[in-house]
Amino acid sequence: MAKDFVVGIDIGGQSSKLGVVDARGEVLAQSVIPASGSADPKVVVKELAQGVMALISQAGKTGEIRGIGVGAPNGNYYNGTIAFAPNLPWAAHGSVEFAKLLQEACGGIPVSLTNDANAAAMGEMTYGVAKGMKDFIMITLGTGVGSGIVIGGQVLYGSDGFAGELGHTCAVRHNGRLCGCGKTGCLEAYCSAIGVARTAREWLDMSDEKSLLREVQNITSKDVYTAALEGDNLALRVFEYTGKILGQSLADFVEFSAPEAIVLFGGLARAKEFLYEPTLKAMNENLLPLWKGKVRILFSQLKESDAAILGASALAWEL
Amino acid sequence: MAKDFVVGIDIGGQSSKLGVVDARGEVLAQSVIPASGSADPKVVVKELAQGVMALISQAGKTGEIRGIGVGAPNGNYYNGTIAFAPNLPWAAHGSVEFAKLLQEACGGIPVSLTNDANAAAMGEMTYGVAKGMKDFIMITLGTGVGSGIVIGGQVLYGSDGFAGELGHTCAVRHNGRLCGCGKTGCLEAYCSAIGVARTAREWLDMSDEKSLLREVQNITSKDVYTAALEGDNLALRVFEYTGKILGQSLADFVEFSAPEAIVLFGGLARAKEFLYEPTLKAMNENLLPLWKGKVRILFSQLKESDAAILGASALAWEL
Repeated sequence: MAKDFVVGIDIGGQSSKLGVVDARGEVLAQSVIPASGSADPKVVVKELAQGVMALISQAGKTGEIRGIGVGAPNGNYYNGTIAFAPNLPWAAHGSVEFAKLLQEACGGIPVSLTNDANAAAMGEMTYGVAKGMKDFIMITLGTGVGSGIVIGGQVLYGSDGFAGELGHTCAVRHNGRLCGCGKTGCLEAYCSAIGVARTAREWLDMSDEKSLLREVQNITSKDVYTAALEGDNLALRVFEYTGKILGQSLADFVEFSAPEAIVLFGGLARAKEFLYEPTLKAMNENLLPLWKGKVRILFSQLKESDAAILGASALAWEL
Repeated sequence: MAKDFVVGIDIGGQSSKLGVVDARGEVLAQSVIPASGSADPKVVVKELAQGVMALISQAGKTGEIRGIGVGAPNGNYYNGTIAFAPNLPWAAHGSVEFAKLLQEACGGIPVSLTNDANAAAMGEMTYGVAKGMKDFIMITLGTGVGSGIVIGGQVLYGSDGFAGELGHTCAVRHNGRLCGCGKTGCLEAYCSAIGVARTAREWLDMSDEKSLLREVQNITSKDVYTAALEGDNLALRVFEYTGKILGQSLADFVEFSAPEAIVLFGGLARAKEFLYEPTLKAMNENLLPLWKGKVRILFSQLKESDAAILGASALAWEL
């Protein structure tokens, strides 16, 4: 039987999302498996495998699955492990041979694994705005900042499988913010959802400027977005600042790998109307003349509910 | 007849260096052709081709040349052009189809061309300290700062042939120095020979500290090196500072492509004894834990007089 379908799995701390996908990126069936809370990788893999096999059967594609692609935090493409992933109790304190275990538990269907940002880049290249591109950089602007770098049509893994930690390159060297990773000034400390909320809170503390955000407890990036939509000046400037920091860093990334385009994805990328112009402007101001005005900034257009599954599934076409 | 030899040409503003090279990196014959001063690419190519054919004949390898590799400022691997190279009067104001012209003038021997830093990286990978490595970054610390990035055993050219302008990534965002490229804070403005001399001059102006350098007119990086060798405190601190800036940037490069090693080359890299430790320290302090202590910093060991020819020649083995 022709194997014309793949499975995509997005592993998360709260739940994992599964989908059966065809070559055009249609999700034929999907399900969500809540995290069991178990710290035993074998239990977790067994539950997941049951979910996978049930979903394949439900989609009527038993025997027609080419492979399973997995996107997971701290997933390593080279050796199929998930290691020291703080949000996964079963992989927080060591290295789990996840791809191997899952393949065994799914009756030998080949499994390929990478981290979430690389999976997102594969998804854009296979089904999204980067379709047909050979060289682009995917930046995921979520709770943190992740990245997937594509060079010559291949995701860049580097010598150890961990290339593409652009969220932890230095965006602000002078008095930079402390990042969750322990370093200071990381891009992630400014251009993530958490970074945007932090900028807003810092600026509110620093002045008496009127702002809708003064009425909000525990400001989130979503609050800043809502305030910006209502024309709040401080909120608008927070996005301008965020775009400026992001664009400056993007210029350095372009000078490294000379991509055709940068693709932005993730919760914060929904604030496209406020982020696009300052980001593009700062990128062009910081580029060598040969690249000025030539590198596009694109926003992912994959349906948010499907994107994680699609990204992971894209990996499986290479199996 | 077996074609077991290649020619390497390093094009410079003052002169071009030519060599016939064997597979082990022995330079069998070499010559130097002074720049003619002509602004006509055809005249320049004709002179160069005469020099190449004479050298091949002198080495006794007529009919045994597999190809000619050329390293040139602003050389583009994809289309074989040299374009807008300020130091080459015949290619300063437009784009010259150099590889095509030279191949015609050399009786059809295939010609491959790239920029000098990429050629240096090829040289290290083929004959030098990066032999056998698949993933490394070459940084050339000369008058300027150049770079050649190797990923999976291939030089990274990007979507347009110009990838790897790491000398113009931002090293100092806050009050950064004006760089020759028009941007501010570029790595090149600090970690080149010119940058080192500039740091020394700025520091001498800023204080009354005693230093051997106070007696020197028009301080060069070589003067700073000589003073450091004599234990001059200010000169020693200039190298410490230069290494710190370089190491900080190297950390960002590692977070991009996860190389096994960084290879340093060029006039300034001769100050290894003063640069190595501060560079390594700053790199490790700015790396994510997963890379701390794992990425090597190596210094090129190719004979300086041969290195440019060898680098260019390495290109020709792929022809």
